[in-house]
Amino acid sequence: MCKKFNGIGASNGIALAKVYILKEEPIIIKDEETKNIDEEISLINSSIEKAKKDLENLKNIAKDKLGEEKAAIFEAHASILEDPVMSEEFVSLIKHKKYSASKSISEVANKYIEMFKAMDDQYFQERAADIKDVTERLLRYVLKLTVLDLATINEEVVIVAEDLTPSQTAQLNPLFVKGFACNVGGRTSHAAIMARSLEIPAVLGLKDILSKVKPNDIIAINGSNGDVELNPEDKKTWENLSNAFKQEKEELKKMKDQPTLTKDGYDKFILEANIGSPKDVEGVLENGAEGIGLFRSEFLYMDNDHFPTEEEQFNSYKEVVEKMNNKLVVIRTLDIGGDKKLSYFNFPSEMNPFLGYRAIRFTLDRKDIFRDQIRALLRASAYGHLGIMFPMIATIDEFLAAKDFTLECKKELEKEGHKIGKNLEIGMMVEIPAAAVNAENFAKHADFFSIGTNDLIQYSMAADRMSENVAYLYQPYNPSILNLIKMTIDGGHKHNRWVGMCGEMAGEPNALPLLMGLGLDAYSMSATSVLKARSIMSKLTLKDTQELSEKALKCDKTDDVLKLVKDLMDKSL
Amino acid sequence: MCKKFNGIGASNGIALAKVYILKEEPIIIKDEETKNIDEEISLINSSIEKAKKDLENLKNIAKDKLGEEKAAIFEAHASILEDPVMSEEFVSLIKHKKYSASKSISEVANKYIEMFKAMDDQYFQERAADIKDVTERLLRYVLKLTVLDLATINEEVVIVAEDLTPSQTAQLNPLFVKGFACNVGGRTSHAAIMARSLEIPAVLGLKDILSKVKPNDIIAINGSNGDVELNPEDKKTWENLSNAFKQEKEELKKMKDQPTLTKDGYDKFILEANIGSPKDVEGVLENGAEGIGLFRSEFLYMDNDHFPTEEEQFNSYKEVVEKMNNKLVVIRTLDIGGDKKLSYFNFPSEMNPFLGYRAIRFTLDRKDIFRDQIRALLRASAYGHLGIMFPMIATIDEFLAAKDFTLECKKELEKEGHKIGKNLEIGMMVEIPAAAVNAENFAKHADFFSIGTNDLIQYSMAADRMSENVAYLYQPYNPSILNLIKMTIDGGHKHNRWVGMCGEMAGEPNALPLLMGLGLDAYSMSATSVLKARSIMSKLTLKDTQELSEKALKCDKTDDVLKLVKDLMDKSL
Repeated sequence: MCKKFNGIGASNGIALAKVYILKEEPIIIKDEETKNIDEEISLINSSIEKAKKDLENLKNIAKDKLGEEKAAIFEAHASILEDPVMSEEFVSLIKHKKYSASKSISEVANKYIEMFKAMDDQYFQERAADIKDVTERLLRYVLKLTVLDLATINEEVVIVAEDLTPSQTAQLNPLFVKGFACNVGGRTSHAAIMARSLEIPAVLGLKDILSKVKPNDIIAINGSNGDVELNPEDKKTWENLSNAFKQEKEELKKMKDQPTLTKDGYDKFILEANIGSPKDVEGVLENGAEGIGLFRSEFLYMDNDHFPTEEEQFNSYKEVVEKMNNKLVVIRTLDIGGDKKLSYFNFPSEMNPFLGYRAIRFTLDRKDIFRDQIRALLRASAYGHLGIMFPMIATIDEFLAAKDFTLECKKELEKEGHKIGKNLEIGMMVEIPAAAVNAENFAKHADFFSIGTNDLIQYSMAADRMSENVAYLYQPYNPSILNLIKMTIDGGHKHNRWVGMCGEMAGEPNALPLLMGLGLDAYSMSATSVLKARSIMSKLTLKDTQELSEKALKCDKTDDVLKLVKDLMDKSL
Repeated sequence: MCKKFNGIGASNGIALAKVYILKEEPIIIKDEETKNIDEEISLINSSIEKAKKDLENLKNIAKDKLGEEKAAIFEAHASILEDPVMSEEFVSLIKHKKYSASKSISEVANKYIEMFKAMDDQYFQERAADIKDVTERLLRYVLKLTVLDLATINEEVVIVAEDLTPSQTAQLNPLFVKGFACNVGGRTSHAAIMARSLEIPAVLGLKDILSKVKPNDIIAINGSNGDVELNPEDKKTWENLSNAFKQEKEELKKMKDQPTLTKDGYDKFILEANIGSPKDVEGVLENGAEGIGLFRSEFLYMDNDHFPTEEEQFNSYKEVVEKMNNKLVVIRTLDIGGDKKLSYFNFPSEMNPFLGYRAIRFTLDRKDIFRDQIRALLRASAYGHLGIMFPMIATIDEFLAAKDFTLECKKELEKEGHKIGKNLEIGMMVEIPAAAVNAENFAKHADFFSIGTNDLIQYSMAADRMSENVAYLYQPYNPSILNLIKMTIDGGHKHNRWVGMCGEMAGEPNALPLLMGLGLDAYSMSATSVLKARSIMSKLTLKDTQELSEKALKCDKTDDVLKLVKDLMDKSL
């Protein structure tokens, strides 16, 4: 019998192999009152020790297979287990509420997971997955359930699972694990991110694939378009697809040291990468990115128990700037508040946090906190080419207040004898509609613009993209959004400013021809998308993309725009 | 000793008289556990009876003094007291939680007040004030405190108070009460609204005026600019101001039947009024409005215990359309959900309700509920000139879905033998940035636009105007907002559509010259602002306003725009 499914293509490539059905015993939390408090506490402690040993092992496996940088995740996991605040919370629930060990772990874990999940940022979504992963391992030890060891797989398989945790993906040996297919997840879920760095094809969000497979089934998956076929009769087609993919991959590798160039020779577009912490720089360089278009400085604040000092920040910023060796590094100042909270600071609770006290609104209000960051950034600017970028700018008053404050700090530092980079740039995110429509006036004052599409779309459509009921309004290709992007680019260019984009849209193959046509200068995306983008650009002419975007701006609907894009892509690629 | 203050001018006019210090005994809620449940319940019941008697009296006083329409508020108040749900809630708290009568009233009242206060609409803000007013009266009876009777004032005074409740303002005899000055409140608070309909000058938001006055002080207040002076030495100046104001008022009255005309003879601008229920039509006609630019249909849904039937809605819409005698009446379809809830329907709870499931997003999803309203509107259209307006339109897909549904209902009704107005118009609110920037494309499909400034500003600035921390970003005169208004008007005019505005901004004297210059066709405001707007327009030339708006669009900042406006107003008025 032959069965076809379609899910979300989350990591490119083709796999055809026997299924490995990953089904773990369910975790069932004990809800009865604890009789022996000391026993439960010692159970937690011994389980923590076992889990830590596992993570040490996993780190070593990952180091060999994936390199230092990727292995660092298991240090992060171990540090979750070592967090004294969390283990105190476990113990406190056992002591004061008579919870079982499992219930106390589950309760504390859920609290943190919900907190991170609520944050509109891929980085924190991943943190939620990390905590889930670690605490589930802990729960399995506490409940005396089997902890699976995927490192023992020794034949070619495609893993079929509900979901894959970071620690599971790290155990996978790509020699044997040819791909995976999961019930849940999407392009930004942890499993997807790990699959892409392991270069294993993955199809996620298949809903009920796990219940459809039987042991010894053969499964074929296409990680590019999400197609999945169980026990395919026409294996030849799948093999052809696989060969074509491998060939394309070889070609992409060649793009690494190539210049970014359109088919008709336009060479002014720049492909950059977004990063969340200094350890991501390695991947940026490996993928031939020409700079860092967005360094989210939040990690320094979130992974901490105090506002990071000027010195702590300076060291991080300097490390990135130096490693990038005079290529532009744009660092966004603290984008926190609203929905992103800090454990060591109380933000006001608000009815609509996305429309609230956050980012530049917070830092301009708290110059004491802002000062440390600005000084650290200015000092780091001496070590390369740095851009300071202010988030959530709505009015020129705000931009000028932030810029003036930066220039004040600069004077102060120079007086103290510090050097400041000669080519320092001071720019802003364009992620609020008011900034986009008035970009021409903003451009008199800002050195550059970087369009943040997630927020820009959310505010322009007045639709919280986290709210399922209105998620249909999250339409990057809607002509209204294209118009706002155009206004931003045209406004910037009027005053000879470069205009970039650091939102998710910048890395989307379908968005590239539109953005090229609109004249976007810098495209900042996940490092792993850079080579593909360079390849697509090399197959498109500037002229075609300009004609495309002109037509797209006149469209009524998102679907009409996507059709135009498809026509051009079909013709060009 | 002479003391000067400045507050918010909330109702125009000058008053100079002795102070009447309105200080009531404070309401202190009893927090101890109730011993005698029956006693507390009967205390509530007897107090409700006393309060109802008061309200009956107040209604009669108000009817004589203010007319049927204004007196209706006391019927609304009485109906709050008669609400069986609320009194059951009182009793339930006494019975099950052993609350005192006062604590149970206060608890229930606060719940409703908070609920209404959270709603972004003047109409519901007033409902919150109504409930506060009624339940405070009830609490005074329960706690055996004096209930003041302002109807007994028999000498000329200016009332100085913390705040004035609707029932207090209704008792005021304008023969003796010459004005009032309050610590709290603003232009949209209940006291302000009542002061304007009584045509009594009022200055609100004075913060601590109540602690500054002594019995027998003389106070002068200027309700136009918010100036207040205690025991003024130069009484002559105040008298001159007063005379000038009276003269202006006489002149305004003459504007009632005048055409709306600029100084240089442009006669295409139309001044309309916003209403919340059929009883407001009287005021619309009295103030010479040329139509109704916004009839909020929410009142039919909120003041109800079920979704209003087609027939119930038809009767209300028909009443308004008929009374307006072929003048255009624009009725907005249900703008509910998000923060505006119904007692008889469960909306999903959302993290950012202002960016959520509301208005057209809800009604397109619930065509069963939408159908009754659309059919009622279409049937009412036969009785005059009706415009159907869809709120919160973000995409052309949404507009077309709503329009197509309306046309389907129309066919259905015609088949059933109903008549539909020949000049029916189907238009939309422009209150989401995506609609404003793409207005030209929307105008291919919509018969008219009406700009909703409150939401448009909120979304364009990404700032919840109810959140104090970011309220500074609510800037109607920001060049970005003016740009969005311009795009909307220009887009509409490209396809020969009329473009109106029904947000607060349309009635602001400072906004008028900018909007005229931008070419706005229809200005819908509170009825009481219409004559003043007509007078201002008559003193401005179209040419001057066009020059003004051109300059304003190029400004960097709100303050720069306001300065340009001031210069023109100083020159022209």
